[in-house]
Amino acid sequence: MAAARFALLITPAESTDEERADFSDSFRRIDPSAPALSVGELSTQRGDGIFESIGVVDGHAQEIGPHLQRLAHSALLCDLPEPHLEQWRQAAAIAAAECGPGEWVIKLILSRGVEHGPAPTAWVTASPAADFTDARTRGVRVVTLDRGVDSDAPARAPWLLLGAKTLSYAVNMAAIREAVRRGADDAVFVSTDGILLEAPTASVVLRLGDRFVSPEPGAGILQGTTQVSLFDHLRAQGHSASYERLPVAALAAADAAWLLSSVRLAAPITAVDGLAKPIDAELTASLNRYLLSPRD
Amino acid sequence: MAAARFALLITPAESTDEERADFSDSFRRIDPSAPALSVGELSTQRGDGIFESIGVVDGHAQEIGPHLQRLAHSALLCDLPEPHLEQWRQAAAIAAAECGPGEWVIKLILSRGVEHGPAPTAWVTASPAADFTDARTRGVRVVTLDRGVDSDAPARAPWLLLGAKTLSYAVNMAAIREAVRRGADDAVFVSTDGILLEAPTASVVLRLGDRFVSPEPGAGILQGTTQVSLFDHLRAQGHSASYERLPVAALAAADAAWLLSSVRLAAPITAVDGLAKPIDAELTASLNRYLLSPRD
Repeated sequence: MAAARFALLITPAESTDEERADFSDSFRRIDPSAPALSVGELSTQRGDGIFESIGVVDGHAQEIGPHLQRLAHSALLCDLPEPHLEQWRQAAAIAAAECGPGEWVIKLILSRGVEHGPAPTAWVTASPAADFTDARTRGVRVVTLDRGVDSDAPARAPWLLLGAKTLSYAVNMAAIREAVRRGADDAVFVSTDGILLEAPTASVVLRLGDRFVSPEPGAGILQGTTQVSLFDHLRAQGHSASYERLPVAALAAADAAWLLSSVRLAAPITAVDGLAKPIDAELTASLNRYLLSPRD
Repeated sequence: MAAARFALLITPAESTDEERADFSDSFRRIDPSAPALSVGELSTQRGDGIFESIGVVDGHAQEIGPHLQRLAHSALLCDLPEPHLEQWRQAAAIAAAECGPGEWVIKLILSRGVEHGPAPTAWVTASPAADFTDARTRGVRVVTLDRGVDSDAPARAPWLLLGAKTLSYAVNMAAIREAVRRGADDAVFVSTDGILLEAPTASVVLRLGDRFVSPEPGAGILQGTTQVSLFDHLRAQGHSASYERLPVAALAAADAAWLLSSVRLAAPITAVDGLAKPIDAELTASLNRYLLSPRD
């Protein structure tokens, strides 16, 4: 992702303020490369916050609604004040208007704030997306990596924040570095009890014959917004698309597999732990054509 | 911890530059409450960095050496550039000189930097410490919480960064909130296979008869600098002090127990999951007298 071209600081509004319709005085545009956050910022000291990444195509921000819903869900899991979704919607719209043609990324960030400040710190950025042509056409090689937790951990230990999209992403980044160290491009996490989870920054979708399947949410993975959107499309096309508790072996055994995320979109998996996997180039291209079309 | 009174931005030097002795031109003092970091800062977007907290007593920074060693170790685990320890030592000394009488905290932070910047972002802050009299005298009530990982996870999955002191601390903060929700003050993590680990921000020390014991490092816990220092003291006093693989039951069964950290120092545990534990007030006070004395 290129450096941010646009940044907006937000003073979060009370979520219960249903009457307020104009949030423009709660927004402050800043130079994205300039100093903006103090060294007391808790997102910076502790990764104590949440975020969303929204793909933007030719100025259309994809699926703002589902992303806002997930932001609210992450806030709930992390005991952060409930975001005022209309405020964030407006902030995202302002950011989208700043995005040029082609593919861009909007990030929404809500942190617990400054250690001795009155409110969380929140901001939105817009950046040109990287060029993901290679990933979408030639695909990505993945390695499976132990996530360290079993599939019941989220239910048992909500303080592990396994279903929240938090800023505490150091492990996700370390997993990708490990994948690269092994000669691959990305990773897929597996629970200690052998259940397929998700990639560090993407969902997993498999094709098993004529069925499309994704690991069921609740096993400590995020509900993927792009993956849900893709499933709507697949079902509209007459395909079966469902969620299952999948053993790791399903990944290598699948007829085809993709990593799915808001910005890279559908990246076909070409190898799993060194074992080659065929790409269905035509199907992949049609999925990405759909994902690049305006979607709400 | 009060708001920072002092902050210094650092341009990290190459660790291999052994000839350099003067780093003053790599330091820039800033107003700690002013904007200093851009919204592109990776510590802020991803918790992708490491830190140390150093206790300062009457202007004497405690155990700078061990804290620097651990910073270097965390950097290694996280694939961050090796910090130039002499540079960081000088930065810490500058911060210590800004600390008034009584107890202060110096934080060292090294992040992966700005997503499209040339170097990691690093800084040091100094803040007055909170008043920990209550915690040190009346003690802390703890709950045991599932860490979600088994005790072999660190060896098996180094990308989980379990032995690094990273900025991805959202889970640690969530665990403390869960403890408070349960009517306690702090938490002690337990592995899924029932091994006692550490508190979210402290080490655990038990007294079993006349032996002092701490969970062995390597089970996915940080090597505690204050705990190592305390063990030196206990051994000098003629006590046995060792590291063991401890089952969670050892915590409730221990004759006494403490949470140990660089700033709060020795906080006696007064309850474990609601079951009361006696405090040895005299021993605790002597431990804290030692910990408050100048230590290198």
